[in-house]
Amino acid sequence: MEKMKRAERMVAVMQVLMSKPNMLIPLTMLAERFGAAKSTISEDLLAVKESMRCTGQGRLETVSGAAGGVRYIPEISAEEAREFLVNLAERLSSQDRVLAGGFLYMTDLLYDPSILRPLALIFAGVFREKKPDVVVTIETKGIPLALVTAEALGVPMVIIRHGNKVTEGTSVSINYVSGSSKRIQSMTLGRRALEPGRKVLVIDDFMKAGGTALGMINLLKEFDADVVGLGVLMETPREEEPKLVDHYLSLLQLRELDPFKGVVQVIPQNSYLSL
Amino acid sequence: MEKMKRAERMVAVMQVLMSKPNMLIPLTMLAERFGAAKSTISEDLLAVKESMRCTGQGRLETVSGAAGGVRYIPEISAEEAREFLVNLAERLSSQDRVLAGGFLYMTDLLYDPSILRPLALIFAGVFREKKPDVVVTIETKGIPLALVTAEALGVPMVIIRHGNKVTEGTSVSINYVSGSSKRIQSMTLGRRALEPGRKVLVIDDFMKAGGTALGMINLLKEFDADVVGLGVLMETPREEEPKLVDHYLSLLQLRELDPFKGVVQVIPQNSYLSL
Repeated sequence: MEKMKRAERMVAVMQVLMSKPNMLIPLTMLAERFGAAKSTISEDLLAVKESMRCTGQGRLETVSGAAGGVRYIPEISAEEAREFLVNLAERLSSQDRVLAGGFLYMTDLLYDPSILRPLALIFAGVFREKKPDVVVTIETKGIPLALVTAEALGVPMVIIRHGNKVTEGTSVSINYVSGSSKRIQSMTLGRRALEPGRKVLVIDDFMKAGGTALGMINLLKEFDADVVGLGVLMETPREEEPKLVDHYLSLLQLRELDPFKGVVQVIPQNSYLSL
Repeated sequence: MEKMKRAERMVAVMQVLMSKPNMLIPLTMLAERFGAAKSTISEDLLAVKESMRCTGQGRLETVSGAAGGVRYIPEISAEEAREFLVNLAERLSSQDRVLAGGFLYMTDLLYDPSILRPLALIFAGVFREKKPDVVVTIETKGIPLALVTAEALGVPMVIIRHGNKVTEGTSVSINYVSGSSKRIQSMTLGRRALEPGRKVLVIDDFMKAGGTALGMINLLKEFDADVVGLGVLMETPREEEPKLVDHYLSLLQLRELDPFKGVVQVIPQNSYLSL
């Protein structure tokens, strides 16, 4: 490859790092790829770090030593996160989202990458320090949110299935009572899907009484998992519906939903905004 | 914000663009944010474009005019794609992935963002020119692949649900015969989930006879959708199992799977490698 000017090399190095977020890239690899000395790449990286400091959209983490290198950690600034959640709450507080039966239509947003990405960065920002090995969710609506959160953290995702007809070798099932339907249901996870003793972050889209979340936590106990965090996008008010789990982070609250009056109000959670 | 040096500004501009792939960012926004003239930002972008040309990992697309701006299109180089698929086929051709009943264990890879991201860039690279408005899949295992493909293309995703117990207003259900189980099953999509007349890219993880894919295509007809592409990660050999659908792209072929001998062989598809 022809030699590049410094600014152009910095941009190219940046592109390589941002294309593989959370992955440790050895300096030697960058030096070889861009035909520059390792010391030159190191200097470039210092300047790159400096320019990132002011965007609030991610940072470089350098790991020294023989097995060292550099990785790009994607982030969202507190200001952007706040603005995004206020906006999202407003979009969800729309009368035409009220469904018969007292449900709130939100799948369009839950499946939209441009909505999911900021949410993932918010969850990753909060839970990164807990160093989860894996993000766990239950099918179906929470899968996209769990996946992007896993990617933002640089870890894989595991999906707990409904029922017990899983065809993936030995599996563990438990019964649980979902808060919304009050019926006994079952959920299953293959033994092979999760090694024993992993640190787990549980992510789901919605929490009412927390029966599903509690079921997941109980199922994960069978895998000797250490649940280091639980994050949900939205919950009903705690004072209205006592929760079966404590210590979780929800980003939005469904303050009011009246299918008869056609009224819905979603608000951002102060607990997150004041973090 | 204090004034930045050119190289540092280029890196910061790049970070803003790469953090919001496929999104059109107005030059005025960048100019304001970095306290530089629009003409300066334009010059920066030309240099950024140039340095990207040689990484093969994405490009800038500029849109001129009043509503114009610049967007980052993520890509994967042909060489990286080929190497990745050869590697993935090898990882899948492992004896310990053979499950009772003649299934192949692959959920660990299907739920891993570091595997999904390159696959998404491969699908996006092939189907971008068809300009899909939305990526459609059916629950559950194909959801992560469909989501990352949607993000790589900058469009939302829609999930078809199994059964017909969807609680999201009016919905359309059809019956279909899945090739693997030979049983009649049903799938459902809410009217609200997909506007009529959209261009749709269908993505799924596995195709045997193609019964599920055909079912999705038939269901999408009820939404006047124009199916502009169908991509699956893996298929069984066409000569062994005639397919119910034509014109699709599969990236891998499950050439052999013998649960009695414990033999499995997965190969990359020549049809893709020779594109």
